[in-house]
Amino acid sequence: MKITAAEIYKSIEMIRSQSPVVHNITNYVVMNNTANALLAIGASPVMAHAEEEVEEMVNIASALVINIGTLSERWINSMFKAARRAREKGIPVILDPVGAGATGYRTKTARELIDSEPPSIIRGNASEVMALYDDRSKTKGVDSAASSDAAIDTARRLSETKKCVVCVSGPTDYIVDKENTLKIKNGHALMSRVTGLGCTASALCGAFAAVEKRSFVATAEAMAVMGVAGEIAAGVAAGPGSLQMHFLDYLYRLSEDDINRRLKVED
Amino acid sequence: MKITAAEIYKSIEMIRSQSPVVHNITNYVVMNNTANALLAIGASPVMAHAEEEVEEMVNIASALVINIGTLSERWINSMFKAARRAREKGIPVILDPVGAGATGYRTKTARELIDSEPPSIIRGNASEVMALYDDRSKTKGVDSAASSDAAIDTARRLSETKKCVVCVSGPTDYIVDKENTLKIKNGHALMSRVTGLGCTASALCGAFAAVEKRSFVATAEAMAVMGVAGEIAAGVAAGPGSLQMHFLDYLYRLSEDDINRRLKVED
Amino acid sequence: MKITAAEIYKSIEMIRSQSPVVHNITNYVVMNNTANALLAIGASPVMAHAEEEVEEMVNIASALVINIGTLSERWINSMFKAARRAREKGIPVILDPVGAGATGYRTKTARELIDSEPPSIIRGNASEVMALYDDRSKTKGVDSAASSDAAIDTARRLSETKKCVVCVSGPTDYIVDKENTLKIKNGHALMSRVTGLGCTASALCGAFAAVEKRSFVATAEAMAVMGVAGEIAAGVAAGPGSLQMHFLDYLYRLSEDDINRRLKVED
Repeated sequence: MKITAAEIYKSIEMIRSQSPVVHNITNYVVMNNTANALLAIGASPVMAHAEEEVEEMVNIASALVINIGTLSERWINSMFKAARRAREKGIPVILDPVGAGATGYRTKTARELIDSEPPSIIRGNASEVMALYDDRSKTKGVDSAASSDAAIDTARRLSETKKCVVCVSGPTDYIVDKENTLKIKNGHALMSRVTGLGCTASALCGAFAAVEKRSFVATAEAMAVMGVAGEIAAGVAAGPGSLQMHFLDYLYRLSEDDINRRLKVED
Repeated sequence: MKITAAEIYKSIEMIRSQSPVVHNITNYVVMNNTANALLAIGASPVMAHAEEEVEEMVNIASALVINIGTLSERWINSMFKAARRAREKGIPVILDPVGAGATGYRTKTARELIDSEPPSIIRGNASEVMALYDDRSKTKGVDSAASSDAAIDTARRLSETKKCVVCVSGPTDYIVDKENTLKIKNGHALMSRVTGLGCTASALCGAFAAVEKRSFVATAEAMAVMGVAGEIAAGVAAGPGSLQMHFLDYLYRLSEDDINRRLKVED
Repeated sequence: MKITAAEIYKSIEMIRSQSPVVHNITNYVVMNNTANALLAIGASPVMAHAEEEVEEMVNIASALVINIGTLSERWINSMFKAARRAREKGIPVILDPVGAGATGYRTKTARELIDSEPPSIIRGNASEVMALYDDRSKTKGVDSAASSDAAIDTARRLSETKKCVVCVSGPTDYIVDKENTLKIKNGHALMSRVTGLGCTASALCGAFAAVEKRSFVATAEAMAVMGVAGEIAAGVAAGPGSLQMHFLDYLYRLSEDDINRRLKVED
C-alpha cells in the first residue's frame, strides 16, 4: 500500500473544511500542545475527562484520542467509558500508551483498554508497543530508544489479534496492520527534544481518522504530516523552543507542494 | 458609553504598578498561557484549586477567575467555595463558561454557579452565552460559531437578571449590561486557531477588574487589549505558533499609542 | 567554595550523554515547560503522580523533583510516597515549595514533607523559604518579592537542621548549606514575567543532582545554567513570550564558552 502527497493533502482539506471535533482524554503535560496542533491542522479539539460528561462529549465528536501519560483512577474510568461510547457510536478511537512498560500501572491500564475496548489505532514508540504484548520488555521511560525493528513483530501480532492499526514511531515510523507495513522516513532528530510531539502525532491520527475511514491510511497520513511539518520546522529552528513554535506554524500552512517535495514513504 | 485609549492605558499602568493578585481556578489546557498573559500585562497570577486552600488564596487576591474548561467534582466544589468567599470579600468574580451547551454537566455547573454566586463578569462565545439561558441552543464544542447577534438578547436578559456584565466574544466582541452595549471590533481570525485565547481574555478581565471597579469598563478594556495585542501579533505571525508568542510579547510591550492607533470601539 | 564554567559544562556533558531520568511530581501550570527544559538540557523527564505508580517510577529515576504549585490531597500522598522511596533508593530529592506562606495548606505540606522526608535540595524564592521556618512571614503570592538577604538566615538554619542545600532564588541566587554560601548573579529581570521559570530551575537542579553527587555543587550549577541561558535569551527576546522560546533554544545549545563569558559567581 502506498500513500501520495495528493491523498494526504485531500485529507487535510477535508479536515480544514469539516473541522471535525476531536475529543481528547490526554495527559496534563501536552494538553496545550495537542489542542494547538489540532487547531493548526484545522480540527476542533475538545478536552473533557469527567465521568459525568465524557459520553456526552463523545456524542458530538468525530474521533476519540486516549493518552495515558498522566494516569489516575478517575481518569481511567472515564477512558473506559468514553471508549465504550465511541465504539458504540462507531467513531475511531486512538490509543497512545505513553510510558507503557515503565510502570505496571501504565502497562496494565493500556492492556486492559485494548482488551476491553479495542481501539482503531495504537501509536507508541518501540518500547511502549512492545510492552503491550511482551512481558520481558521494560522501558527506561516515556521516550525510550528500544529498537523499532524489534517492535514490528509485536505490532503485527497486536494488529492481528485486536484488529487495529499499530504505529511504531521513531526515526522511521512503521504503520502496521495484519497485511501491510508502511515506512515513513520523515521527521528530524530535534523533535525528540520537544515534549509531547508523540502525543501530538496521536492527536493528529484522531483528526485524520475523523475524515478518512481507512484507519491504516489515516495513520500513515497523520504520521507523514507530523514528519514533514517537523522537518520543515527543524530546518529553520534554533533549538527545541523554536521548533515547537515553527511546527505549529507549518502545520497550519502546510501545502500539497510541501508534502510532495518531502514525503519519504516506503512499503 | 465609550472607552478611550487613554483610559485603557491608565488601567494598564495601574495593573503594572499594583501587580494585583489574580486567583485563577481554570482548566488544565490553558493554565500556562493565562498565567503568562497575566504576567505579561503586569498582574500577579496564582493558580490554586484545592478546597483546603481556595478561600485563603481568595483572601490575598484582588480578583477571582473561574473557568469550567476541564471540570470535575472536586474542582466544582472549590469553584463554589472560592466564589462565595470572593463575593463576601467584595472582589470581582469572572466566569468563563467554557463549553456550556456542549454537555449538560457544563451547562448545569455554569448555571448553578451563576444562580448561587452571581459573578461580576461573564465572558463566553455566542453559543456558550446562549446555553446559560436558552435550552434550545446546543453547541458544537468549545469554539462554536453561533451568531453573536443572536446571543446578545440572551446576554442582556442574563445581565438584567443577575446584575452582571456579559461579554459575548467573537469577531466583534459585545459587552452588554442592562443599559449599555459596546462593540469592539479588534482582533484577528488567526486568533481562533490558538487554544485558550478566549480563556486568556477572561483572565485579563480579572486583571482589569482588579484595578477598575466599573465591571463594564474593565471588561471593555480587557477585550480591547486582547484584540489590539492579538491583531498586532497576527500581523507579524507566520501561523498560530508564532501568534501565541508574539501575543505575549506585545501584551507586555503595549503602549498607549498602539491602542490609540488601532482601537475600534462602537456603542 | 567556587564553581567554574569548566565544571558546569562537564556536568552538562554528563547530562547529555547519560540522559538521566528525572521524575517530576509538579504543578499543572508548568509541566510542559519543565519537561521541555529537561529535554533541552539533555535529561529524560517523566511525569507521574498516581499513588499506584510513583514508587515504581522512582525506581527507574535518577532524581525526584517535588513541586507543590497546584496541590490536592491525592497528589500530596503521592509526594510523600515518592520521596520516601527516593530516599530509600538513595537518589536526590528536590523540593520546590511554591507558594509556601501564601496559604496554610502549602506551608503545612512543605513543612511536613521536609520533616518527614528531608530533601537533598530546597529551592524557593525568599518568602517561600522563610515560610518554611518562620511563622511571621506571609507572602503576597507565588512570586513574592521578599528580601533575599532576610531569607538567608532561614536557609542556613534549615540547612543545618535538615542537612540539605537551600537555594534562595531571586535577582541574586544564594546557594546555602551549613558552611557555605555561593552567590550567582546571572539572570535577567524579564525572567520574572514568564511563569514557571522558578519551577524550571528546580527541575534543572534535579538533572544536575542526577549526575553530580555533591548537592551544593549541583544546585549551583543548575542555577548558573538557568541564569546564563536566561540572560542570553533575554538579550534577544522582544518580551516574555519570545524569552520562553529562546530560553529553551539556548539551554539546548549552551556551550562552555557561553558559560565562561557570562558566569557571575561569588562566594
